[in-house]
Amino acid sequence: MRKDPADLSRRINYKFTRQEFLDQALTHRSARKKNNERLEFLGDSILSLVITGYLFNEFENAQEGELSRLRSSLVKGEKLAELARKINLGDYMVLGTGELKSGGFRRSSILADTLEAVMGAVYLDSDFERCRKVILALYEDELINLSSSTSFKDNKTQIQEYLQSRQLPLPKYRVVELTGNPHDQTFIVECAATGLDMVITGTGSSRRRAEQHAASRILEKIKDE
Amino acid sequence: MRKDPADLSRRINYKFTRQEFLDQALTHRSARKKNNERLEFLGDSILSLVITGYLFNEFENAQEGELSRLRSSLVKGEKLAELARKINLGDYMVLGTGELKSGGFRRSSILADTLEAVMGAVYLDSDFERCRKVILALYEDELINLSSSTSFKDNKTQIQEYLQSRQLPLPKYRVVELTGNPHDQTFIVECAATGLDMVITGTGSSRRRAEQHAASRILEKIKDE
Repeated sequence: MRKDPADLSRRINYKFTRQEFLDQALTHRSARKKNNERLEFLGDSILSLVITGYLFNEFENAQEGELSRLRSSLVKGEKLAELARKINLGDYMVLGTGELKSGGFRRSSILADTLEAVMGAVYLDSDFERCRKVILALYEDELINLSSSTSFKDNKTQIQEYLQSRQLPLPKYRVVELTGNPHDQTFIVECAATGLDMVITGTGSSRRRAEQHAASRILEKIKDE
Repeated sequence: MRKDPADLSRRINYKFTRQEFLDQALTHRSARKKNNERLEFLGDSILSLVITGYLFNEFENAQEGELSRLRSSLVKGEKLAELARKINLGDYMVLGTGELKSGGFRRSSILADTLEAVMGAVYLDSDFERCRKVILALYEDELINLSSSTSFKDNKTQIQEYLQSRQLPLPKYRVVELTGNPHDQTFIVECAATGLDMVITGTGSSRRRAEQHAASRILEKIKDE
């Protein structure tokens, strides 16, 4: 017995002005011609931008390739199906007889597509900003896990935060040696973290690179201890 | 000699509050570490949603597959490079010495990526709605061409519009025959377009399909004449 879509509205914390958008989003192509395929196409694109924008802001030090990898992990079908199951999306879908009999309401691909269609419907019924909030709320747990398990902060920043959190003095960096000719120089930088009783050097083709190298060696020592 | 990015702002009809976003968008990775790769990642996703939203609204009768094909043709690298050349984007880019010497400012892939980065920068500096307008203005000619060359209206709608534009009476459809057993019926529908002096039949497994078939046969005759 199919449940009232109004319950689903509560689950995603969005009340539709035009209920027919939600109805269409929940209708699989096996049920009728006016189904959710177009809305899925729209929703897929909205989801992608919302997640991209989130990652862009959250991981300031991540390169494009890392952002792309993270995004894939969040928008893939299996992840969407997982989120769809959390809100019991299968209970609200409209399937054709064949799909109903073969348990289509439990199939990951159908659940994922339908969730994207619901996102498309929210966007059509409101605007980008409102839809963005609905999507981020759906993804809340995933995004919290992601942020705590993923660090793209550079080495110097990571050490600085580590020391600040322990109210220890910040490290000092200084160039102790510079070798090579003007176009092929090697910097040796010393990082003194008095709070950790560590003085460690790093090398690199620029001052910045040498500092990051020294910082990375300190981070390794911290992790080892 | 690189031109002033303020001219580019005028060309895309968007004035940046934070000029540094535009500067970063114009900077290729060959020039420095703080380059446009992240902004390109963001811009790509914004462009995709803007074009998807446009196509979704413009082609109400297009299936998901058709929308997807149209979108690909609009966001592909060659198309972006073409738009980039129209606004002389190459004149404003910042390239490393190697890319400068090898003519990187004319290369399609670099032009396309930079244009996406500029879109990302506009989004960061404003919001989705404003960025959408900038992108649609950039694509104006392409979208006009697309709309006039592409029709996804169903056959009955096309005939109706054709007759209305000539102030002729609308066609009448009626089932003239129904054969087969209940689960395998064939409908024969007659379409009478008195304004065109045409009475034509169509067949199909449902009334709707038979009507569309009759309508398609009338459309063919109209096009032949």
